[in-house]
This record gives sequence, structure tokens and C-alpha cells, in this order.
Amino acid sequence: MQLNQLLKQIEFIKEIDKLKYIQRKTKLFNSDRNENDAEHSWHLAMMVLILAEHSNAPIDILKVLKMVLIHDIVEIDAGDTFLYDTTKNHVNTEEELIAAHRIFGILPENQAQEFISIWQEFEEGKSNEAKFAKTMDRLEPILQNISNKGGTWAEFNVSYDTVIEKTKGMVKGSTTIWEYTENQLHEAVDKGILK
Amino acid sequence: MQLNQLLKQIEFIKEIDKLKYIQRKTKLFNSDRNENDAEHSWHLAMMVLILAEHSNAPIDILKVLKMVLIHDIVEIDAGDTFLYDTTKNHVNTEEELIAAHRIFGILPENQAQEFISIWQEFEEGKSNEAKFAKTMDRLEPILQNISNKGGTWAEFNVSYDTVIEKTKGMVKGSTTIWEYTENQLHEAVDKGILK
Repeated sequence: MQLNQLLKQIEFIKEIDKLKYIQRKTKLFNSDRNENDAEHSWHLAMMVLILAEHSNAPIDILKVLKMVLIHDIVEIDAGDTFLYDTTKNHVNTEEELIAAHRIFGILPENQAQEFISIWQEFEEGKSNEAKFAKTMDRLEPILQNISNKGGTWAEFNVSYDTVIEKTKGMVKGSTTIWEYTENQLHEAVDKGILK
Repeated sequence: MQLNQLLKQIEFIKEIDKLKYIQRKTKLFNSDRNENDAEHSWHLAMMVLILAEHSNAPIDILKVLKMVLIHDIVEIDAGDTFLYDTTKNHVNTEEELIAAHRIFGILPENQAQEFISIWQEFEEGKSNEAKFAKTMDRLEPILQNISNKGGTWAEFNVSYDTVIEKTKGMVKGSTTIWEYTENQLHEAVDKGILK
């Protein structure tokens, strides 16, 4: 029984290696090399550990870590969705739900259910944990774009207003981090790397 | 005060991006592309979440996650140490200790101390959490090498006896996982991908 459980888990561990091949639009800090989803997920997990104290509300850090570690796994099947994509709306698409069931479904039943549920909670963005996880998910590419003299903002012609529109929800996770971020965005405009 | 704290934390978050450039000897599953330390750390964190139930002893999962997420950060300065390197012994070297103090030292004092202490606990390998974290750190490259028809074992001419010698400590973290691993190693010998 325990071995049967383990075999399914090992199968899942092999499957999710594919996350290392999913390229994001964003580049690494001060770099022209695209970040992949596995690197991104690791970085968010570190940010959760470091920045949790700035959460507006008390959060279960273990749950937030689970969220950021698994939040992009559906992209193994569904592909990366770019925040500033003007043609595809990123709201828990049908394709992603099917992907969640296929990929997490490799796990033993109890774990599959837990991970699908945590992924959905993240996507809905309503719980304190989801709000903070999403704040991390928005913050990393902003820091990267600033370090890359505009990065994807410059590359895809994204305006200050659009960045604010897409990222202002960060305030729900942390007012401290959002205030810092808003200042950074103003500075980016002053420097001419965000129009 | 809170902003001062945040600025140090952001500085650290930027610094650790460099982990994405540290190449391991091991290749991704069924691949000839080397894995980097950030991808590896993410994969171990996922393995902790999935496999924790097989730990011999009760463990604080959040602490094990912290360990695997940060365990290779010192390699930003000290470089990757290959498990089967015959010239360099991997036991918490002076170089790594200096790296830990420089890199974690970017953080606010309380966090710097916490992370250095967790990294040292991992390196010592004595606590239940460290034993399980090290079991994960050994398991991932074994699974990768098997999927790569021998991988680094074949590339660096590593024998079955050496693999057993270097990995048998896994039994301290999980007898279930070690028994599975031993079987996999026997099968690898039978298949001729480990001599």
C-alpha cells in the first residue's frame, strides 16, 4: 500500500520536471535570458519566506508556499499566460482546469484533491494566503523589468496605466509592499523605462 | 523602519537570482540539458510536500521546506560541489560558511541569523528535518540518472558501490524511500546503466 502510494508520487515528481521547460516572457535580473516557471516558482517561495511579515493579514506560511510552488504547474499543459497579453484573459481557464486534473491526478487521491483545491484557492485570490501569494507573483516581474531597463514593458509596449491596472491588486496582500512598488513604478516613469 | 527592513529584503531577493546560473552536473529528466540550482531547489521543495508522509520521524514540514529552498544558496559564491567529486570533500567548507555570512547577511539581522542557522542544521544532517531534506537531495539526481541511462554515473565512471556509499544515508530520512531507491539501483545494474 505504502509502495503503491510512493510509485504514484514518484511518477508525479518525474512529470513536473517539465515545468523547467516552460519559458516566461520575463527575463532574469539584469539579463537577456528568459526565466522558466520552475525558477520563478522557487524565487516566489523564497520571497514568501522573506516577506511574509509584510502581509496585511495573518497568513499560514506553509499554505502560501504550497500555492507559489504549484501555481504554474498547470502551464505544463496549458502554456504560460503573459500578464499583459491583450488577447487572452487569465482567469482560471477551462484548459487550465483540465490540466490541473490531469497533472495533479497522477498523485494519490487525497493529495490530488489537496493540490487542486490549493491551486483553485490561489486562482480565486480571495483568501489571505492567496492575496499574499498573488502579491509575490506580481512583484517579481516588476523587479525584473526595472533591472532590465523596462523589460517586458518596453518589449511589449505596456504603459504605466496598464501596469497599475494589472498590479494594483497587490495592495490586498500587503500595503507596505504595494507602496514600495508604486514608488518604484513612479521612478521607472521618471527614468523613462516605463511610459 | 519597516521600509528599511523591506529594502534589505529586496536587495537579498535580487542577489539570489544568481542561483539560476549555477549549473549542476546532473541533467534534467530524459534530457541533455543541465539542471540549475534554482530548478533543483524548487523540485526538492515539491518532493518534500509530496513525500513527507514517508519520513521515519515526525517532521516540521515548513522547516524542511526552508532547508531545501536555501540549501544551495551558498553556491552562488562557492560554486556547485558534485556528490561524486573525488578531489573535493563536501563537508560545510570554510568557503561556504563565508558565502552564507555574505549572502544571508544582506537580510535584516534576525532573518540572516535564522537562515544561517537553518543552513547549518541542514549541513550537519542530524535533526529529523535535515535527515529528510538530505534524503530528497540524494533522491532527485538518482531518479534523473536512471531516466538518462546512467547520467552522471556513466559520464564520470561512478560505480554501484560508490553510489551506495554516497547515498545510503537516505535510510536515516526514510526507510520506505531508501528501499525503493535500493531496488532502483539494483535494476540500474541489471539494465547495465550502473556498473
